[in-house]
Amino acid sequence: MSDCKERIVRPESLKAFCSEALRKLRVPDEEAEITADVLVSADLRGVESHGVSRLPRYAKRLMNNWIRPEAKLTVRKETPVSLLVDAENSLGQVVAYRVMELCIEKAKKSDIAFAAVGNSNHIGIAGYYAMMALKEDMIGLCMTNAWPLIVPTFGIEPILGTNPMAFAIPTKHERPFVLDMATSVVPIGKMEVYRRHGKNVPVGWAIDESGEPAVDTETVMRCVYKTKCGGLLPLGGLEETAGYKGYGLSLLVDILSGILPCAAYGPHVGIPEDPKPSNIGHFLGAIDIKAFTSVDEFKDRMDIMIRSIRASAKAKGQDRIYIHGEKEWELEEQYRRTGIPLYLKVWENLRDLASQLRIEFPL
Amino acid sequence: MSDCKERIVRPESLKAFCSEALRKLRVPDEEAEITADVLVSADLRGVESHGVSRLPRYAKRLMNNWIRPEAKLTVRKETPVSLLVDAENSLGQVVAYRVMELCIEKAKKSDIAFAAVGNSNHIGIAGYYAMMALKEDMIGLCMTNAWPLIVPTFGIEPILGTNPMAFAIPTKHERPFVLDMATSVVPIGKMEVYRRHGKNVPVGWAIDESGEPAVDTETVMRCVYKTKCGGLLPLGGLEETAGYKGYGLSLLVDILSGILPCAAYGPHVGIPEDPKPSNIGHFLGAIDIKAFTSVDEFKDRMDIMIRSIRASAKAKGQDRIYIHGEKEWELEEQYRRTGIPLYLKVWENLRDLASQLRIEFPL
Repeated sequence: MSDCKERIVRPESLKAFCSEALRKLRVPDEEAEITADVLVSADLRGVESHGVSRLPRYAKRLMNNWIRPEAKLTVRKETPVSLLVDAENSLGQVVAYRVMELCIEKAKKSDIAFAAVGNSNHIGIAGYYAMMALKEDMIGLCMTNAWPLIVPTFGIEPILGTNPMAFAIPTKHERPFVLDMATSVVPIGKMEVYRRHGKNVPVGWAIDESGEPAVDTETVMRCVYKTKCGGLLPLGGLEETAGYKGYGLSLLVDILSGILPCAAYGPHVGIPEDPKPSNIGHFLGAIDIKAFTSVDEFKDRMDIMIRSIRASAKAKGQDRIYIHGEKEWELEEQYRRTGIPLYLKVWENLRDLASQLRIEFPL
Repeated sequence: MSDCKERIVRPESLKAFCSEALRKLRVPDEEAEITADVLVSADLRGVESHGVSRLPRYAKRLMNNWIRPEAKLTVRKETPVSLLVDAENSLGQVVAYRVMELCIEKAKKSDIAFAAVGNSNHIGIAGYYAMMALKEDMIGLCMTNAWPLIVPTFGIEPILGTNPMAFAIPTKHERPFVLDMATSVVPIGKMEVYRRHGKNVPVGWAIDESGEPAVDTETVMRCVYKTKCGGLLPLGGLEETAGYKGYGLSLLVDILSGILPCAAYGPHVGIPEDPKPSNIGHFLGAIDIKAFTSVDEFKDRMDIMIRSIRASAKAKGQDRIYIHGEKEWELEEQYRRTGIPLYLKVWENLRDLASQLRIEFPL
């Protein structure tokens, strides 16, 4: 489903603008660059909900000191393979980037390293950080909790976030495997797209206040934003299609990202509009493949597997089977050539932000 | 849905019988005990498809030397946090048990340890091994690949297994969190139950040869066992309800369990009837909580989270929200008191096995 995208912008210009805006908000140069890169990467990969559309919200939080502009990471506990990090309310993108760097450095020495991070903020696309491990021939993973939107099986109260998990695994000639998924059936952003189009959503995406399937987007929005009763279903949907598994995955992410580092968890994770620190938590890690096997041979096997899936028989009307990450890699290549299409509303919000910050708006 | 269960057996007697049968098949005493315990645990926890019903199949494989009776584990590569194990075609239960022991021992010294295992066999319930970490206040995980039954999104060829993943996480007063899930919507065993009852299955469980939803169990069985075209859907179901996420999870398990240790993977994992070693692979691990945080406080937070989910508002007609593993713990307590109900067919197969092995059948 396409939406009315009105402005095509060059990725480099978009990144430069985001970086400039962040610097104006007292974010140090390098940290502004990191954050801008993560945001633009999301748009390049087609995950608009986690891209530059978020910048005005971050800006508001930075202006109000609900996010600290200059990152400060305090390691509270450390072993050769583990880190407990207090992110001291720094920008989530900088936190996840820096902590993933630490995990990779540790894994270079100790083969495996995991970090639990508390007191952080929204990190954008989890896959970005998992993919940082690829260049070192490591498996990268990143999970984060998020504000509550998901109802547990047989429940109607949204008490779990869409809590994404991302895994990146290197290949040789094929594109890396990058699984970056919310543990809900769909993210809330997809509901908003359906609403704009006045379309009903499929059964299995959400339930209403009495626990019945909600197909009308107005109902879903009311449940999520007003009554806080009813909400998105976990991956798997209703109970009969194994929604309890997605509920379990969402809870697992919350345990590792929220409970382990003593961040907020479950219903306590702050919603984006809350005028206070979010205390979001993450769980990141890197696993060096060569601790287990020959990297070269592993990558050969990855390529073989990917090719055998791709070559397998297609369903009627389908001409292609995708591997995870493939669509996003292709979109990125396309958008680097053609520019990124932005929704007019997103473009306008960026323009307003430029005016508010008194910086140029060259997009 | 209940099924015609005809024989109630005491768990101790059932375990003793399985152990005796395995010893008769040249499995050493301790290994027979381990295998019997894993099998009976599955029945106690209500996972009949992975319980003693499997014993005759294992027996056939042991008799034919398609499984080695005396376990032999060869460590091919080792670091303080990792193991690559060649299971030399030993009994899967013994392999997973022993390797999990090794992971826990390593994690006691190094905080985290993972093992990739190749050349193994069917391990039964993955949750059993993940749960071994609980008594050490560690997080346990276990994944294994399996023979191909799942179709990728937009595909019709079953090229991935139901590849389960299990995670066990300790608590204080509440029961531990144990997520033990196939990455398909349902296991094939559940289809068989529906077939016995002559019932259609819900849309979203399986597809037929042209990629259309299959609701008739005869169609599903034909796809899975005869045409090998069409099959079970990954968690999430069809594409519009995010089946590509379950497909990604199944592939992730296959990468870690199959590709990493150089076991069979994807379409190459042997079906249970294959007259040759299965070359199944596993990925196991243990993470010591105290490397990150106070175990005591972590467990308190787990309890709080579990209670807040349980106390949250219920959907109409529901009076309880379950935490993962809870149903299984309760069933186990009940069956330890009342005995385990076995399907008549399963009981008859065990009786026939006893006769074939010339051992007593006291069940």
